[in-house]
Amino acid sequence: MKNYFIFSVMDLSFNQRLKAICREKNNYLCIGLDLDFDIFSNNSIVDLNTMEIFGKEIIDGTIEFCPIYKPNFAFFERYGSKGYAVLENLVNYINGRSVIIADAKRGDIGNTSKHYAYSILESMGCDAITVSPYMGRDSIEPFINNPLKGVFVLAVTSNSGAREIQEHGDKINPLYHKVIQISKELNINDNIGLVIGATQIDIMTKIREISLGMPWLIPGVGSQGGDMGSALTISHTNGGIGIINVSRGILSSGNGEIYSIINAAKKYTKQIRETICKQIES
Amino acid sequence: MKNYFIFSVMDLSFNQRLKAICREKNNYLCIGLDLDFDIFSNNSIVDLNTMEIFGKEIIDGTIEFCPIYKPNFAFFERYGSKGYAVLENLVNYINGRSVIIADAKRGDIGNTSKHYAYSILESMGCDAITVSPYMGRDSIEPFINNPLKGVFVLAVTSNSGAREIQEHGDKINPLYHKVIQISKELNINDNIGLVIGATQIDIMTKIREISLGMPWLIPGVGSQGGDMGSALTISHTNGGIGIINVSRGILSSGNGEIYSIINAAKKYTKQIRETICKQIES
Repeated sequence: MKNYFIFSVMDLSFNQRLKAICREKNNYLCIGLDLDFDIFSNNSIVDLNTMEIFGKEIIDGTIEFCPIYKPNFAFFERYGSKGYAVLENLVNYINGRSVIIADAKRGDIGNTSKHYAYSILESMGCDAITVSPYMGRDSIEPFINNPLKGVFVLAVTSNSGAREIQEHGDKINPLYHKVIQISKELNINDNIGLVIGATQIDIMTKIREISLGMPWLIPGVGSQGGDMGSALTISHTNGGIGIINVSRGILSSGNGEIYSIINAAKKYTKQIRETICKQIES
Repeated sequence: MKNYFIFSVMDLSFNQRLKAICREKNNYLCIGLDLDFDIFSNNSIVDLNTMEIFGKEIIDGTIEFCPIYKPNFAFFERYGSKGYAVLENLVNYINGRSVIIADAKRGDIGNTSKHYAYSILESMGCDAITVSPYMGRDSIEPFINNPLKGVFVLAVTSNSGAREIQEHGDKINPLYHKVIQISKELNINDNIGLVIGATQIDIMTKIREISLGMPWLIPGVGSQGGDMGSALTISHTNGGIGIINVSRGILSSGNGEIYSIINAAKKYTKQIRETICKQIES
């Protein structure tokens, strides 16, 4: 198996590295590793060994073309320390062949965030982490000291209740504008991106304008019904890129059999490549 | 060791149970279990067994008078799945003798929050969890279905960067007002409280007014310099209670020796009792 980063990992900031692997694999797909037994197993007795093997099969079948994986910590923590160990094993298994975004949505006072950063980025070895901005800029800072490691700050999320909070303020200056502004100001190491849900197409053009070329992680495609084509097209303007995250839309494909999952990932890849090619040609 | 809840755990909502144990132990102290090796160990080689024994010693020395413990997940996750197992063991060790608030600051789309809720409240067996409201009310809802289990929603936190986000909007309707409003609306099972930092004394009276009798979890006392007396006095009005969380202020006491830690917890307890008594007399 090819190790994509050995040649350059020491020279590139996280955002540069993210762009490089997407270009190399010609893909902007992020597979969300939400390993939900309710979906993929008919067996009500949870067998963590089966879960780990299943995760590795998904990785084996997709890593050649998938530049990014996003394990969602809830689906591992659900099984306590033993589930957490499965997560560690999957991160080790990917071993630099793709970028790993820890979907952990951490965010705490600086002294605590420092420990989360060590835990997830250094000790476990993920490449980036999702962070909630509710506690302000000092809750984000401990995650961004190492330029090789990245942060995706929640800005505009894809769930139905998001707008009530994230659009608080007036129309000219909603909360998510402030979050984007803070993220830009903190981005001196070129290692911050934004989470921008694909269900919020109406405000995406404005967000791309104010977020300059920061990368976006785009959830909400698939089971949440977001518009992938528009999200991809808009995010790839102004020097930026958009990473399309699909979790349930891939993992619950077919009856959760491995070939259905790999085929679904290939289908999304094909759509992404076609959209991006069209954009480059236009 | 006395089991405080066996007689009543099935009848009380989380908020009622919290009040009951505080009354029974005549204390509103929450000891933050931020087991930081940098503080309590001179040994740079991390020995998780020592960490667990140390945690149990703190519990042994304080559980008679301490109604609430708040393990901070970062300090356990820092050591990966093995650190997570230490956390599980400490939760088991407390075993209903005090309330356990999982300081995990989770918050995600409903489908994910459902798994976090199962993980932390049901499987691990904590009594309550801290939740970040940035993703809106549907990110909180999965945590509050069981009236016996509670949630503390971050409203006004104690860190220096908090105000920039949490006061967004105008003075009459800052973001944290909306967060409190949503929390009140969701509180039909009487199991929601608010995190209100002790560094924000100037706005506490107004917050107690709008949050009615919801319990507050109050960080920021101790190393962050918050005013415990005022926080306690204001929070205990309008039918509410305020839980004073102290983490580093207790755990880093002296040189982190166990007797210094227990003495610091006793000192805070004495101050809390004196303040509350004064309030009752006045």
